[in-house]
Amino acid sequence: MTQLLPRIFPRSFLSPPSILARTFTCSPALQKQNRNPKMATVKTKTGQEVDRLVLDSMLRRRMFYTPSFEIYGGVSGLYDYGPPGTALVNNLTDVWRKHFVLEEDMLEVDCTMLTPHDILKTSGHVDKFADWMCKDPKTGEIFRADHLVEEVLEARLKGDKEARGQKVEVDAEKEAKKKKKSKGETKAVKLDDAVVKEYEETLAQLDNFDGPELEQIIKKFDIRNPVTDGPVLPPVAFNLMFQTSIGPSSNMPGYLRPETAQGQFLNFQKLLEFNQQGMPFASASIGKSFRNEISPRAGLLRVREFLMAEIEHYVDPEGGKKHPRFVEVKDVEMSLLDRDVQLSGRTQTTKMTIGKAVETGLVDNETLGYFLARIQLFLTKIGVDFNKLRFRQHMQNEMAHYAADCWDAELHTSYGWIECVGCADRSAYDLTVHKNKTGAPLVVRETRAEPLRVEEWQIDIEKKKFGPRFKKDAKTVEAAVDALSQELREKLSLDLKNTGKIEIDVDGVGSGKVELDKELINIEKRTRVENVREYTPNVIEPSFGIGRILYCMVEHVYWSRAGDEARGVLSFPPAVAPTKVLLVPLSTNPAFKPLIQSLSSKLRKIGVFSRVDDSSASIGKRYARNDELGTPFGITVDFQSVKDNTITLRDRDSTKQVRASEDEILAALKSLTDGEETWADIIKRLPEFTGQEVE
Amino acid sequence: MTQLLPRIFPRSFLSPPSILARTFTCSPALQKQNRNPKMATVKTKTGQEVDRLVLDSMLRRRMFYTPSFEIYGGVSGLYDYGPPGTALVNNLTDVWRKHFVLEEDMLEVDCTMLTPHDILKTSGHVDKFADWMCKDPKTGEIFRADHLVEEVLEARLKGDKEARGQKVEVDAEKEAKKKKKSKGETKAVKLDDAVVKEYEETLAQLDNFDGPELEQIIKKFDIRNPVTDGPVLPPVAFNLMFQTSIGPSSNMPGYLRPETAQGQFLNFQKLLEFNQQGMPFASASIGKSFRNEISPRAGLLRVREFLMAEIEHYVDPEGGKKHPRFVEVKDVEMSLLDRDVQLSGRTQTTKMTIGKAVETGLVDNETLGYFLARIQLFLTKIGVDFNKLRFRQHMQNEMAHYAADCWDAELHTSYGWIECVGCADRSAYDLTVHKNKTGAPLVVRETRAEPLRVEEWQIDIEKKKFGPRFKKDAKTVEAAVDALSQELREKLSLDLKNTGKIEIDVDGVGSGKVELDKELINIEKRTRVENVREYTPNVIEPSFGIGRILYCMVEHVYWSRAGDEARGVLSFPPAVAPTKVLLVPLSTNPAFKPLIQSLSSKLRKIGVFSRVDDSSASIGKRYARNDELGTPFGITVDFQSVKDNTITLRDRDSTKQVRASEDEILAALKSLTDGEETWADIIKRLPEFTGQEVE
Repeated sequence: MTQLLPRIFPRSFLSPPSILARTFTCSPALQKQNRNPKMATVKTKTGQEVDRLVLDSMLRRRMFYTPSFEIYGGVSGLYDYGPPGTALVNNLTDVWRKHFVLEEDMLEVDCTMLTPHDILKTSGHVDKFADWMCKDPKTGEIFRADHLVEEVLEARLKGDKEARGQKVEVDAEKEAKKKKKSKGETKAVKLDDAVVKEYEETLAQLDNFDGPELEQIIKKFDIRNPVTDGPVLPPVAFNLMFQTSIGPSSNMPGYLRPETAQGQFLNFQKLLEFNQQGMPFASASIGKSFRNEISPRAGLLRVREFLMAEIEHYVDPEGGKKHPRFVEVKDVEMSLLDRDVQLSGRTQTTKMTIGKAVETGLVDNETLGYFLARIQLFLTKIGVDFNKLRFRQHMQNEMAHYAADCWDAELHTSYGWIECVGCADRSAYDLTVHKNKTGAPLVVRETRAEPLRVEEWQIDIEKKKFGPRFKKDAKTVEAAVDALSQELREKLSLDLKNTGKIEIDVDGVGSGKVELDKELINIEKRTRVENVREYTPNVIEPSFGIGRILYCMVEHVYWSRAGDEARGVLSFPPAVAPTKVLLVPLSTNPAFKPLIQSLSSKLRKIGVFSRVDDSSASIGKRYARNDELGTPFGITVDFQSVKDNTITLRDRDSTKQVRASEDEILAALKSLTDGEETWADIIKRLPEFTGQEVE
Repeated sequence: MTQLLPRIFPRSFLSPPSILARTFTCSPALQKQNRNPKMATVKTKTGQEVDRLVLDSMLRRRMFYTPSFEIYGGVSGLYDYGPPGTALVNNLTDVWRKHFVLEEDMLEVDCTMLTPHDILKTSGHVDKFADWMCKDPKTGEIFRADHLVEEVLEARLKGDKEARGQKVEVDAEKEAKKKKKSKGETKAVKLDDAVVKEYEETLAQLDNFDGPELEQIIKKFDIRNPVTDGPVLPPVAFNLMFQTSIGPSSNMPGYLRPETAQGQFLNFQKLLEFNQQGMPFASASIGKSFRNEISPRAGLLRVREFLMAEIEHYVDPEGGKKHPRFVEVKDVEMSLLDRDVQLSGRTQTTKMTIGKAVETGLVDNETLGYFLARIQLFLTKIGVDFNKLRFRQHMQNEMAHYAADCWDAELHTSYGWIECVGCADRSAYDLTVHKNKTGAPLVVRETRAEPLRVEEWQIDIEKKKFGPRFKKDAKTVEAAVDALSQELREKLSLDLKNTGKIEIDVDGVGSGKVELDKELINIEKRTRVENVREYTPNVIEPSFGIGRILYCMVEHVYWSRAGDEARGVLSFPPAVAPTKVLLVPLSTNPAFKPLIQSLSSKLRKIGVFSRVDDSSASIGKRYARNDELGTPFGITVDFQSVKDNTITLRDRDSTKQVRASEDEILAALKSLTDGEETWADIIKRLPEFTGQEVE
């Protein structure tokens, strides 16, 4: 078993709770799987292997996304979304808002990204939201310490393999990048078997090391700048928040928020009031967050500016965190990778209904279970492949100390299993720290149905004598008396009865011990009646990385047709597809123009977004181009259309077509894009068209 | 007439072009009107005077917006939107996207907010996007220089009025703020008539002064810290961009973008390709921008982080910038406040169709005119009062030097006339500066329908002799030759013919004059044939401040019922209302619960967002509460509903009700929220209900 080692910031991208946590992934197999994503082989729905380079080049060519500021040389970790990417993001957030916010009357808020220092100091981000970095003092180059160790050790292991004459797996993408950067080739140097083992063990545990440990490793293995072979300085912590200054004087330091959650917590009191004091309820927020990654890689998966959608569901900690709508999802079957399986070094998921998972205690409570199921329903709705989705439970030591339970929705891609949604039970942590810092009553006050009667030891202070006796220390002593526990009070009441005086600890007054006698205090057991219950709600936090979900989903819906492997197809569900229908006149003949224009305006009216491709390319080419954009339907206007006002409707996935009157096709499209019918329904009720072949 | 004075950054909030412009508002009357918005009296549709304090308190109470980080003391210029505010923003952007992006197939992009220094250096923001600030060296307090002058002079003028026994207008809000801050009261000191006049003139021109001029004014009038009466240091420029550092080393300074436009310009080439080289086309972007205001005031109108929606429409500079859809808007009547009227010191608008305005040359071209009309259609669609809307043309000196024309849509509110949308013809400026800096071909290349034949003077250089003759200067001399104008070439060809040699200016070579003879060059008139036309498109930029539009629109739809002035009503159009319908059970009787639940789920299904108010308050109270949230419709479920499944539908504005079957009411609601019918249509076709009085 590996050691328990603290880290300042685990590799988790999404789960803010973990910033205060010790990360500990017990299974080296699982870590290896996650750290070496280049080795992941993923197949499309039609059984082809996903070639990431081909897919990526298609996504850039079709301007789903593009490196920001490219004409100025670009900045790593910053990407712009082009028209189809922006439409995808808009559609994803639209579905998200309907699925979560509107469905459950969540209170959506929009808080600022600029955040003053004090808030993020309280939340822990100022102190702990950091990575370890190493500087090459000669070149000024900066490396993320664990990346550096990984790169160097892997190169040596590869050199060893070569020296042993073994086959070396090559990641084309990585190699290409290395060639650009590195002066030298990998040296084929054979290593001792013991050294190989040591390197491999180090790599498997890389996520567990903190700064001083990384420093030891760098020293021990003589890790150097891989390009210049120069030595590097010991790792130092680098806070991942972008810092700035608010206002004209520099006395208000601030940061760009690393998550949307804090803004929601700070508004808790007002939101509770807005909700007319009703509990439970949830707030939600969709917005950009920022992390100043040391050396971002892996495309859209680790970026410096990204869109998050976060929910903070506030629930009474008493009563088992039941959820009134849990019954609606209890039969949803899920792939769960629980803590015990990971502890045993395996990565096998268990298929189980969420009802069963909560019943057996695998998932901590109904509310958490409800959201896990709802997350799955959302992901599959937008096109995620159920067979490439798993929910992985955090290890005990991977979670924050206050967290009750935490599961990540992970999607399988060519980069390996990618954490896309975190769902944590954060207990009362966040509201408590902000309440303690500011004194704001971030609590719920509830009239008790029946008054609560509490038997307790109460201490009365004789104020008239207390003040003169302790003078300037009176308040401090009184506070120390108030803070005495019930157990201690019971014991002290006996002392007082028996000896007429007691002694208590008071920090900072005299010797630290203070004597109090019967003249000053009285301790008695009494019954207190409480009509109002006051509690700090617990928070269940589903946190979505929209960019990550987008990329992984795109990999899931990507495939290519037999015989035309060079051209990809993106089978987006209609609800998220950037464009819903492509309008294609058979040729550039002007006779088609009025029909296309009228169709376009009618589609706009019924809320179905279309685009026209009236270029002179062949119909087949135009449809192929559009398959790459993931447009689910196509309408062709031909000479018969001009005569009898019938048009054909093509389905992207099957390439089958139906032909009917304009009105019928428009109604079918509306029903298809609203999700009321599928293509299977349409082709049953409208006549199939085979006359005009797609070239 | 006032002087022409340069400024580093005019008061314009929205129009980025103006950062490079000299601002010059000729009419002191207009400036006064804009600078002293506290004096603006605005009436609601029903004739009441808008009391901003009452409205503002309602908006905060109902959590439309709230100061950010309030429990930590707040930060001026930062606000969070609560649930109804967030819904309003979402609905406004949704309408905007449909009205502009989808209607015209604009290419929406989503670019990063983090922007490296170089881009904003090229655009001019690093050098010019600044305000003047003064520091009190003793207290460390910082003032915006023009604000300071304004505050002090106005206080003195007020003191003078008091001393003269005149009535002093009091702005309650401002007074309250001052009392909190200031130690002393206004001193009633009589001023000389000449001094009063000088102060008033200075105030009227305040927008025109740059730093050195403000420094003179501060010296001349002995302007001091109004609280401590201590002297202040001379004004210095303060750049309004939030600065940060990208990546772990501090060698990549960056800023938060002050506008979304730059990201769009940088992607021009890719967007043109995405559009299959088709011109004209537009890109668009909705996203947050940032300005580090020195001392933000005026609530939502001047904030440090704000949502913008910007369009960059690229158009061929040749051919008069016609627009193919101009004919669709040519009859839209608009209120125009043109340059000449302002020059004459008046603020009277002219009502004119946009067709006429373009025809007469008042508005520079069709494309600009098209967008002005489309902006008006958008604003009135979302609830802006046409009578409180005007389009104000920028003065010649207020525009950037490269701009062809620029108009602001201004909305009249209790703060005065507020610039909410800027619409500028930016010519080819932006693409040109980025092209020149990076060398990227931000141009359009078009095959000419007919090859262009250009008669021109061409110069041939005898390279073999040219190199040896000029050696290291050869390239410089050749460049100087290439740069010779056609006029000069014609003249030089004669010289060469007559004297066998010519003399040209070459900076940095020898004496700066270079002699060339027949051996070295030959000048001839020839015909060049151009098959491809290359040009830099011009940009028409409509730029929307969503937060400003939101606030002004709220003022426009705000009113209160006769007899119930304390409670406001917000008459949002259904399309932008945060909630479309309120479900109200007659009482807390459990018999109503299933009906309400079923209605709620049916409404969700047809895409109509509803909320339930099943509190024990009276129906009248619940509806009044909801009037403040601007919910346009209400459904009441009573005992008859349980019996015969009929329900009543209430109209917020008229408080009239109809009663019909559930299906009929749901269909009516769908049609009302889709904008297909109005309440006037509904009350004609469904039976009015008067039985159950709203208390």
